[in-house]
Amino acid sequence: MSLLVVGSMAFDDIETPFGRAEKIIGGAATYIAWASSYFYKDINIVSVVGEDFPASEMDALREKGANLDGVQIKEGEKSFFWAGRYHNDMNSRDTLVTDLNVLADFDPIVPEAYKNSDYLMLGNLSPEVQMKVLDQMTTRPKLVVMDTMNFWMDIALDDLKAVLKKIDVLTINDEEARQLSGEYSLVKAAEKIHAMGPKFLVIKKGEHGALLFEGKNMFYTPALPLEVVFDPTGAGDSFAGGFIGYLAKTNDTSFENMKRAVVYGSAIASFCVEKFGTEKIKSITTEDVHARIAEFVKLMTFSSI
Amino acid sequence: MSLLVVGSMAFDDIETPFGRAEKIIGGAATYIAWASSYFYKDINIVSVVGEDFPASEMDALREKGANLDGVQIKEGEKSFFWAGRYHNDMNSRDTLVTDLNVLADFDPIVPEAYKNSDYLMLGNLSPEVQMKVLDQMTTRPKLVVMDTMNFWMDIALDDLKAVLKKIDVLTINDEEARQLSGEYSLVKAAEKIHAMGPKFLVIKKGEHGALLFEGKNMFYTPALPLEVVFDPTGAGDSFAGGFIGYLAKTNDTSFENMKRAVVYGSAIASFCVEKFGTEKIKSITTEDVHARIAEFVKLMTFSSI
Repeated sequence: MSLLVVGSMAFDDIETPFGRAEKIIGGAATYIAWASSYFYKDINIVSVVGEDFPASEMDALREKGANLDGVQIKEGEKSFFWAGRYHNDMNSRDTLVTDLNVLADFDPIVPEAYKNSDYLMLGNLSPEVQMKVLDQMTTRPKLVVMDTMNFWMDIALDDLKAVLKKIDVLTINDEEARQLSGEYSLVKAAEKIHAMGPKFLVIKKGEHGALLFEGKNMFYTPALPLEVVFDPTGAGDSFAGGFIGYLAKTNDTSFENMKRAVVYGSAIASFCVEKFGTEKIKSITTEDVHARIAEFVKLMTFSSI
Repeated sequence: MSLLVVGSMAFDDIETPFGRAEKIIGGAATYIAWASSYFYKDINIVSVVGEDFPASEMDALREKGANLDGVQIKEGEKSFFWAGRYHNDMNSRDTLVTDLNVLADFDPIVPEAYKNSDYLMLGNLSPEVQMKVLDQMTTRPKLVVMDTMNFWMDIALDDLKAVLKKIDVLTINDEEARQLSGEYSLVKAAEKIHAMGPKFLVIKKGEHGALLFEGKNMFYTPALPLEVVFDPTGAGDSFAGGFIGYLAKTNDTSFENMKRAVVYGSAIASFCVEKFGTEKIKSITTEDVHARIAEFVKLMTFSSI
């Protein structure tokens, strides 16, 4: 098996009720790669950074098994930069700065060796860039997972719908599912989104967990209630990384296995929010992950009699 | 076993994005009694109504096994009346009218035969009234479950805290748990609320499910995603009714059995919201309830490998 991850690698300034962090490492591909590395080692990344992106961060990912041949480094340019401030409830945030920099004209180039990847994770990027990646694949991946956000629904809905026709799993949050479908009921929203293309839909609900839909099949995984939620940045990407990393490892895209993948993705995401940025998901061990998964099982298990 | 339910019996005007209903039957005790009747038949009610409350509604409850000797009927007075309007997201609502009427000076009188009830459900009422009921019990019930709301935290916190010392299970929503504890993390909130008295805490999260806490033990039940959510009124009371009805039936207050009780309470609540007021929970069968519980099991079950 092989896993191709496409997404941003970036700097973030983050302000939460618990403190602030400046110019820390962020970006969808970064979180996805770190999260998936706890399940799967053969990760290929397609991304773009400026000359300011630390080589040490690239090396750290290589040590976890990632291949970064597909990461373009633009001399004389700056990496994508995002600054945001979380509200007291940690469920909503204001974007303070978005400097696209190298992302503004990102032309993804998929190296030959990645073009027949079995698992493809399209991190949140413009649908146009996501489509350019799909167009370069010489064989249809076994599974394509796509993350996106309301921003693209607002400004590039037609492009987004074109990509939706070519993917298998869409991951969005509940408000985005409602926006995309025009339906308040998530059951009805899932029906309409299935009709747009993706056979599977994951609706991410932050502290309320995540819902997996495949036609009439539904599965709900809670989020683990935590003592400390320090910084929600990257939680959705960490979820996606754990999700596709587990699927790539097991090479099983059945609904039964997807259920495990959403629980395991949720487990990785639960680490992510406990510290600023990527700090926590960089520092955990496989044992930590297994222990956390066991907590999820305990949280969810009851016997009906 | 015997189950004593204390709460309002009322009229409601309800406006949702799907329509309006005027002067329909409502009240915490009404919803609780109907919901618990699917698990348990020996239900005693303490409440108060005006002479306007339909005898047919009382008869319908009697047919389901409820004993209404503890329901005071005030000649020449009007029943409690509430009018509310739900916002488009159905998660928030405005109260338009609250006419306390007979509730204004409700002095609950617990009939002799109820004073040694094994299970006591204190529906949402002023903490003073809840305490008056507790004071009349000649034997400590095996389990006291109390529902309350932010309104009483705002205006009668000391009274509320006095009642908390005497109960076993508190049911409140997530915002109320945060208000009562002063903690944003629900894990920390649960710790502080345990210290106030209740050994068990149920945090109701509406469409996001419910969390059960007993010390370090946590259990999460999702809400069933529904095609139609018509009217959320009474969902929390229906949950509480199913919860305590199942506990009274099984006479088992272990954490393992409480987990089942929160799932079964959630199943009853999922019916409640599908139609206006009590319409749906009055019309279901035991078979409907079992089928719905099976849907919850399917929604929650995965095998970790």
